[in-house]
This record gives sequence, structure tokens and C-alpha cells, in this order.
Amino acid sequence: MKSYEILNGITSPQNLKNLNDEQLARLCEEIRQKLIETVSVNGGHLSPNLGVVELTVMLHYVFDSPKDSIVWDVGHQSYTHKILTGRLENIDTIRTEKGLSGFPKRSESEHDAFNVGHSSTSISAAYGIAQAKSLLGDNSYTIAVIGDGSLTGGLAYEGLNNAGRFNKNFIVILNDNKMSISRNVGAIARYLTNMRIQPWYLRVKKNIEKVLSHFPIFGEHIKRHLQKSKSNLKKLLYKDTFFDSMGFTYYGPVNGHDIGELKKALLAAKRMTSPVLLHVVTKKGKGYQYAENDPKNFHGIGSFDVETGEPLSRGVGFSDVFGDYITQAAKEDKTICAITAAMKSGTGLNNFAQNFRERFFDVGIAEEHAVTFACGLASRGLLPVFSVYSTFLQRSYDQILHDAAAQQLHIVLAVDRAGVVGEDGETHQGVFDVSLLNSVPGATIYSPCYFEGLGLSLNRAMYYDMGVAAVRYPRGGELYRPEDLKDISEDYNIYGNTKSSVLIITYGREFSNVCLAKEILKNKFGKDICILKLCRIKPINPEAVDFALSFQQIAFFEEGILSGGIAETFLSLLEEKNYKGDYIIKAINDEFVTHGKVNSLLEHLGLDSESVANLVADKFFNIYKGKK
Amino acid sequence: MKSYEILNGITSPQNLKNLNDEQLARLCEEIRQKLIETVSVNGGHLSPNLGVVELTVMLHYVFDSPKDSIVWDVGHQSYTHKILTGRLENIDTIRTEKGLSGFPKRSESEHDAFNVGHSSTSISAAYGIAQAKSLLGDNSYTIAVIGDGSLTGGLAYEGLNNAGRFNKNFIVILNDNKMSISRNVGAIARYLTNMRIQPWYLRVKKNIEKVLSHFPIFGEHIKRHLQKSKSNLKKLLYKDTFFDSMGFTYYGPVNGHDIGELKKALLAAKRMTSPVLLHVVTKKGKGYQYAENDPKNFHGIGSFDVETGEPLSRGVGFSDVFGDYITQAAKEDKTICAITAAMKSGTGLNNFAQNFRERFFDVGIAEEHAVTFACGLASRGLLPVFSVYSTFLQRSYDQILHDAAAQQLHIVLAVDRAGVVGEDGETHQGVFDVSLLNSVPGATIYSPCYFEGLGLSLNRAMYYDMGVAAVRYPRGGELYRPEDLKDISEDYNIYGNTKSSVLIITYGREFSNVCLAKEILKNKFGKDICILKLCRIKPINPEAVDFALSFQQIAFFEEGILSGGIAETFLSLLEEKNYKGDYIIKAINDEFVTHGKVNSLLEHLGLDSESVANLVADKFFNIYKGKK
Repeated sequence: MKSYEILNGITSPQNLKNLNDEQLARLCEEIRQKLIETVSVNGGHLSPNLGVVELTVMLHYVFDSPKDSIVWDVGHQSYTHKILTGRLENIDTIRTEKGLSGFPKRSESEHDAFNVGHSSTSISAAYGIAQAKSLLGDNSYTIAVIGDGSLTGGLAYEGLNNAGRFNKNFIVILNDNKMSISRNVGAIARYLTNMRIQPWYLRVKKNIEKVLSHFPIFGEHIKRHLQKSKSNLKKLLYKDTFFDSMGFTYYGPVNGHDIGELKKALLAAKRMTSPVLLHVVTKKGKGYQYAENDPKNFHGIGSFDVETGEPLSRGVGFSDVFGDYITQAAKEDKTICAITAAMKSGTGLNNFAQNFRERFFDVGIAEEHAVTFACGLASRGLLPVFSVYSTFLQRSYDQILHDAAAQQLHIVLAVDRAGVVGEDGETHQGVFDVSLLNSVPGATIYSPCYFEGLGLSLNRAMYYDMGVAAVRYPRGGELYRPEDLKDISEDYNIYGNTKSSVLIITYGREFSNVCLAKEILKNKFGKDICILKLCRIKPINPEAVDFALSFQQIAFFEEGILSGGIAETFLSLLEEKNYKGDYIIKAINDEFVTHGKVNSLLEHLGLDSESVANLVADKFFNIYKGKK
Repeated sequence: MKSYEILNGITSPQNLKNLNDEQLARLCEEIRQKLIETVSVNGGHLSPNLGVVELTVMLHYVFDSPKDSIVWDVGHQSYTHKILTGRLENIDTIRTEKGLSGFPKRSESEHDAFNVGHSSTSISAAYGIAQAKSLLGDNSYTIAVIGDGSLTGGLAYEGLNNAGRFNKNFIVILNDNKMSISRNVGAIARYLTNMRIQPWYLRVKKNIEKVLSHFPIFGEHIKRHLQKSKSNLKKLLYKDTFFDSMGFTYYGPVNGHDIGELKKALLAAKRMTSPVLLHVVTKKGKGYQYAENDPKNFHGIGSFDVETGEPLSRGVGFSDVFGDYITQAAKEDKTICAITAAMKSGTGLNNFAQNFRERFFDVGIAEEHAVTFACGLASRGLLPVFSVYSTFLQRSYDQILHDAAAQQLHIVLAVDRAGVVGEDGETHQGVFDVSLLNSVPGATIYSPCYFEGLGLSLNRAMYYDMGVAAVRYPRGGELYRPEDLKDISEDYNIYGNTKSSVLIITYGREFSNVCLAKEILKNKFGKDICILKLCRIKPINPEAVDFALSFQQIAFFEEGILSGGIAETFLSLLEEKNYKGDYIIKAINDEFVTHGKVNSLLEHLGLDSESVANLVADKFFNIYKGKK
């Protein structure tokens, strides 16, 4: 079953060139086995990778990477590409610390033309590469591979629009798997569906030719007459797709699992001397029954049982709690609308969508539009809640400022996957949202640590705050909670020995680590310190600042980027009150956080409980002199 | 000449309803006079407003604002709208402090459905409004008015895509003035040109019908045969525009200066029960010869002489110096590419574009694409310089993080209009870019105060730094420079009495005000203080921090948002070194900055020289007790 006869011979894309179609097809089967085997252990993006096996193999067959540049959109579908480009023997390290990244990385291989992780960048990046080649006199090929989901992002359109006037070969491959991460709710998705089902312009052309052929003389006459408006007729018959109006010659649709068809189409695209869009239809999850039947759940997945398709279990997470809360609230409050940018399942909105269809809006992978659209709803008195991963919220900075905050429209941002997220690596860590939102005038931000705080925060954000109100919460579920921590407040909590000279301030999930650190400090060093747990991190309650003033030594631990974060804000508030004690900050300082397990990454960042305890012991009690 | 016979009778859009076509046309002429009169004194956006006079009048004639919602894109073309909706008598206060805003403002009038200033938001916002109305059982109309320039922005596409599936009336008016702020270099612009010149689908339809009519019997036969694929044929003949594929029924093109045509088309759009796009062709600057001949220069303009069209003179500005520098540099260095998002003139790139056509890229109003495209160029070893207004850079936050910084690609951001810009108001103030860029790992930021520093900074950014390197500079030209300030450094300068106990730290244009404050402190209060002028504000040179440590009292003045700014960064660097002196910050604290003259706005913000001097005298010398 799992013999990799052909695959084991592939150490570079060059090895593909001598394979015949049958061998190529067998190679594809072997790659599928390898993908299932790998992802079932490491977790990762299974369905997208299974869908592009043939396409990837044939891209490397027809083109010459790295001379020719293949730019993957999003990049979670690049596993086959990695396997074919010399990384087969390391593929089982994918998404593990110091192992291969789950996304293309220029530092990892010369075959990875451009780093990625977020959606819709490929056309812009590839066009930049193509223009650079043109300026440098390099006539190699540049190919962008973009999914139908990514095509709903405005950046993809900006790229198409700009590249559509290029006067050289430039290839965009539309990998149409008929389904983005959630269902596309947009006109383009419907449009592609129509094109797939019925390439009508070809059928009409056939009809006309057939009719005219029935009437040898008159038909010829009509043909000649029509030929007077020759270019118009040609347009009429061949050139009227969306992509043609964007300046791209459209080819397709092509069966993305047919080696022969792909070869023909890619060679045709190669021959063009202007931009071309090749429409390839693929099946997400292709070749693994469970993934074919339920491609959404196998989109991004943790480890699972290959035989049953069952994921190794996970507990209740913040997304679920958010989803329950908002669904419950929407029963009472008819003004609540939920918005997602193609992340219905991921953000816990399945139930809401089912129960309140007309108040649920999946806008496609379009975070900018999501916010401005929410503002439109809010301007008429509705209560929009945009649920979005922290890392993708980065796309909406201007809309949050310009459309929401500046005109004081009340929108709620439910910011999921806030903080370090782990295996997806630097493009997905949710460590910038606090800095981003903290700079927005009038915004309110909550960062609860427990489910209970999430509910309280959402309630406050929805019904007591004005303007932009954000509630951010981590990936996964609750972590450590000390038994003697009783009430949770939506503003701040004081926990521990208020007589201590040392205060640790933190917020969000990091509070759990700080509580554990507190215990280490007590048990290992005999020091009983105090913790100030913030939940509303903007604006900070002045009482919390006053409380902190009485401590001689303060340490702030922040699971987010230092610049513009809450540690800096708190310091400047203390300074305003003339605080003269010591203040140290541990946050993510001017660096990106790579991929790996969350706990391990926090350790590297000095934010795990051991590091927190040791830093405080060292700096404030002068008693820890262990390893740095 | 300047009699406003009809206009003076218009106090609400209702007054339009009784006018006949001739009166409406005369009204338009009167409005034109009023616009020219007003803008020639106050400055503002002339060409865009002259272009939409008839369109605006007829919108208010056919629809019932404020019940029906008109959402303007960008909003700089809303002057006629303001005039017609009860603001005629205040129109001469436009863009002046406490006067009317140059953009729609919900707080100003119930007729302003949505605030705006940046491009491409109207479809998203209007669709939100339309969905809200639908949920609330309100069947009034919602209309988005968007220019061809704004249509190049991805947000507009995201809005079209999402709204294209709406099952009710929703009207988008494409105000096609054949020219965005600079020339659109994109496929959509070319596409619209083709549609304007030659509505070919109509001509082809006519051709076919004409041909068939020549052949009574056979023609009928063919017709019948073609009718078998009825819906396809209909599509073929009527429905094959870009907009149809986005789910919009396309009407047009319509002459946007013909009252009768506009009336007919708007009424037709009103009758639709699904999304409709009405293509209106207008002439930018219409009715004022100088503006018609040179619409670009009359796009956004200061006060000018109505008779000659000559702007009241302005001196050399930072944009010019940047333009000269980059053009000069590009002669030597063939890798330099300049990128603009439809702001060629505004950012000083006219000469570059003329001299290095193949290395100049106007990507349309597409700041996201501009950055990712630049990254593509950089990945192949070219040196892209993206010249952009500070306020529009907000659109690129994720691309700067994800595409540039995370993969350490070297791109240069030339950030124009940094700091308070004045009359355009809160949507245009350049006060967030520092906070935004400061959070980007590995980024370098320069904020020079003088032309000399701009050159030094650009040189460093282009040839000595890696990754994202930004140089930011204000609108307009140099301000006060003390004669005894000699060398300018690209890192930091020390100016004044180093023996003083008081240090003021600042950067960028604010240095001029702080120097004047220094003189006030000396002349009025007899205090001789020291100034630390930063030019490279990220990373801050550690020597500058060490220098500051020796002062007892430090005040940081920052013409930017407090959160995430340099004042906070500097404080945390001092704290790291255990600084125990006093530190006060004056920055823009959690508020938007309205419209008005720059000096007056700085006064309100406490950043003008008087306020700086008084704050320091009060806080550090305890000698000023004047007004707050």
C-alpha cells in the first residue's frame, strides 16, 4: 500500500521530465498516500493539498522551477510542491519546531518564490516578479496559483487589474475547488459555478456555426456580414468572461485531475505572449474519502486516525463559547448580525448561521469589506459582530479607523486566535491586534482569560460600549485557573498578596502562566507576589493604575508585540502619576514568532511560567541566577 | 453673472421636484458658478465637483433623501449634494475650522448617509445600509456613487462581489470621468474606455438583427434555432459586461451632463428589483475651462484666481524634493522602481514617470497591491520605492507585515503628508503611520524635519537599511530652522544647552515648533533648555537614550497618535536603563483631528510653539500659570 516506488526517485523537479503519463498518475497516488500519512500525524491542511496533487506535478513537469517562478496563494496547499522540490525526506517534520514550515518560505528552498500565509497575495507578488524579470531581461515564466476562495479578496482583483495590461506572458492558474474555507457567498462564486456547469460561450459558438452550416450560401453571406465587425464578433464568441475584461485571456475549464488535459492546457498557457488565466477545476480532499465527503473539516486539521477519519479529540474552545454566546444573544436581540470572512466554522458561527440565516453574512475572504459592511449595518441601528482571526484583522486596519472609529459607529470585533497560535507560524500568530486596536481612537478592547470573562466582555462590548469594541481570545480552550480565584471582572482582578512589593501585570491567556509563575515563586523561592489581571485593556481603568502605584516593583508580561502594546500604555499612565519604582516589560520585541508548539514558543519568548518566575526572581529578588 | 435665482430657492431637495428640465439645467449652471466661487477662495476639490453637478441634481430629483440613502465614494465630490441639502448658506465655510467639512459627515446633516474620505468604501457601506433596511422592513432606496478611479480599489470589488447576490434593488452609479486622480493604469480602465467608445454588444445585436431581416425565411429559422438557447443568447447579446458577471444588471453608458438622459436612466434603475449598475459618463472639471483642460491640477487645489485659473503661489515642498531625489538617484541606479497608488503628481513623481517610464508603476488606487507588488520586485533584487500619503498607507498594514517584513524584503516607503495635513480633516490626517510602522518587526523609520534630512534619510533607507525602510515627511515645505543649527544627522541631533536640567525630545516637523518654544522659554522665562531631535525614530540610537538619561526632566512632543508612538518607545527604553527623572508626553491622545488650518489644529493639540513653551514652563519650571 504505502510503497513510494516512483516518489522515492524524485529528488528534484527535473526527475519528472522523463516520466510518462501513466507514471505521473502513479506518482500522484503515491504523493496522496504520503500527504495523508503526514498530515494525520502532524496536522495541517489536508483537503487543499489533496486537491492540487496533479496540478502541482504537472506544473513542475511543464515548467522549470526555480528558474520559472511558481507563486502559491495562501500557501497551505504547497506540500506536494515541497515534496517534489527536494524536501520529501523532511516532509514528516512539517509544522514542527525547526522542521519545514506549513507554507512556502524563501529561506527554506530556492523553489519557494515568495513567502505567504494570508490569502489573495499571489497575483500581486507574481506580477512584481514578472515585471522585475522583464526589466532584468530574464524571459523565464512566472505563474500564480490562486484558489476560488482567494479570488474573493480585493487584493487579488487589484493584482488582476494591474497585471491585465502586461504585454508579456504572465500566467494565473485559478484552482477552482468549488468551495473556499466556508462557502463563498459572492457573485464571483456563482459566476464560476455557471462557467463550470456550462461554458455557454462555446456552446453558442457551436450553435451559430451549426446553423450557418445548414445554409451554405446565405450562411456564408451572414458570416461575411458579421465578419465586418470582426473583432466584436470574436469578442462575442470567445472573449467575454470576467477575466477577459480584466485583460486576461481565459482558458478553461480544465479537469485538474487529468494529467493529459493539464499538460495540454499548461503548454498552451506557456505559448501565450500576454496574460492568461487558466481555469482548473479540482476536488478538495481528492483521493481520501473522508476528506472528499467533508472537505471543510479536513481543511485545516489536527492529527487524526487515517482509518476512521476521526480527529484526535479536542475540548471546548473559546470559539465554541463565543458561538454559543452570540447565538443565544441573537434569540433575544433581533439587531445582532454576525459577519465572517469565509471562516464560519473556524470562528464558531455554524449554529448562528443555521438559526439566523438572514442575519448571518459570509462576505468571502474580504476582511476590509467585512468591516465597512458592518459599519453600514451599524449606521442603521443594527449590532454587527465581525468574528475574525487576529492575524486576518490586520487587513482591516484602515476600515476600523476610517469607517468605524472616525464616525463612531458601534461595531463589535470578536478577535479569535489572539496570541501565539503555534504550528501555522509567523504569518498566523495573533500578536499584532492589540497594538493595532490600541491606536484606534475611542476603541475598547477586552482580553479575557477564561470563558466566563469572554461572556462578560461580549456583553459589555455589545451593550455598554460605543464605537469600536473588540473582544479578543486565544485559540483552544481555558488553561490553568487557580482555585482561589473567585469572581472574574470585566475590568481587572487583583490576585495574590497585596502586601508584596512586587506586582505582575498581565492580561488574556498569559494570566494562566503568570499564576503558575506565582506558585513557582512561592514554592521555589518563598516569595508571595501579587498579580493584576487586566481584562479591559483599553481604556485601562484608572483604579488599576492607582493600585499598581503602591508597588515598588512591577513586571508586565504581554503575549503580543511590544510596540503599541498595553505594557507601554500602562507605563505611560504610571509615569503620568509620577511613579518612581521599577518597571520591566516582557513582550514580543520587534520579532516575528516562528512555527512550533505554543508552549515551546512561549518559552522562547520568555512568557512561559518558568521564565516568568525566573525573571521576577532575578530582577526583583535578586535570587535567580540560572540560565538566561 | 453670479445671480443664483433658482439656487437661492433650494433649501431642501424637495424644492427640486417642481422644476422642469430647463430650470434644472439652469440650476446646474448656477451651482457651477457657486462651486468655482467657493473653491477659488477656500481651496478644495474642484474638478470632481464640477463633473457631478447634473448627476447630483438628478439623484436628488429622482430619489428622496434622507429617506433614500446616497453614499458617496471618497466624498470630495459632495459639494453640490451639500448645497442642495440645506447647506448653501454655509458652503463658503467649507474646509475651514468649525465650518462645513469637505467630505460627507453624518454629524453635519441627515442627508449624509455615511462618512468618508478614503476611496472605494461606498459599495460596502451602501450594501450594509441596504441589508439593514431589508432586515428592518424599510423599502427605501440605497445608492452608492463611485468613480472609475475608486473602482480600481479592491474594497470596491469585495463590495460588488458580496452585493451582487442581493435579491432586492441596490443601485451603484459608476461616475466614469475617464480619469482618476492620476491616469489609471489597469485593465478595468481600459475596459471602461472600450465600453464608452463602443457599446459593441448593442452594435452586434443590431448587426445580427439587420442581417437576419434580410433573409425573411431563413432568418426566422435561424432566430428560432438560436432561441433554443434562449437565456444564453440573451446573455450573449445583453449581459456580458464585467458588472453582469459580478451580479449587477448593467445600464449605460449615459451622458452625465444630460438632464433628460439621467432622469430616464435613474428612473429605470429605481424600477429594478435586483442590483443594478448605472454607467454615467461625466467630464471632470465640466464648465470651467481651466479645469476641463487640466482636471488633474484642479482635482485638489488651494485657492486660485478665477479669471486666470492660476493657483496662488506655493513654494517648494517635501514632495518636490523627494521627486527630485528619486529621479536623480534613478539615473545612477537602474534597480530603482517608483510605485504610486494613483498619486503621481501629488507625491512628486511626474519627472520620474517621464524619465523612467518602464520603471514607473501607477497601480491604481490599490495601496495593498502596491506593497505586495513592490515585494515581488524586491524579491528579484530591484529597489522599489512606494510613494504614498500617510493616511492611505493605513490600507497596507497587513501587506507591510506579511509580505515585506516577515520575509525581510527590502522595500522603501516614502510616506508623504505625514503629520497634521489641515483642511481635509480627520480622514486625511497623517497621524497613525508612526504607530503602524513602529509595530512592524525589523522596520526602520526616518522622520526628517528639513529637506537636507530627507535626502540623507532616503539615502540610508535605500542603501544601508534592510527590510522595510520608511521615510516620512510633512505636507508643504520647510518651517523654522534656527541659524545656529548646523549639521543635520540622519540619526539624531542635540541642540541647545546640554547643561540644562530639561530636555525636550521630538522628531519631524514638530522640531521647528519646539525650537521656537525654546526661544520663548529663553526670552519670556529666562530658561535655556536642550532639545534632542530624532530623525531615525526606529530603531532609536542607544546613544540618544544614554544622552537623555542625564536630564532630570524630559518632555516628548509628538505630532502623531500617542499609542504605539515614539514617546512611549523612548520611555520604555529609559525605563530599561532605570531612569528615575520626570517624563511627560504630549501627543495626540485617543482622538481624531478635525479639519482646519494646520497651525490652528496644532494649537488645539498643544503642539504649537506657545503651548510647548507653556507646558514646559508650567510642569518643569513651575512658572507658567496661564490658560490651560
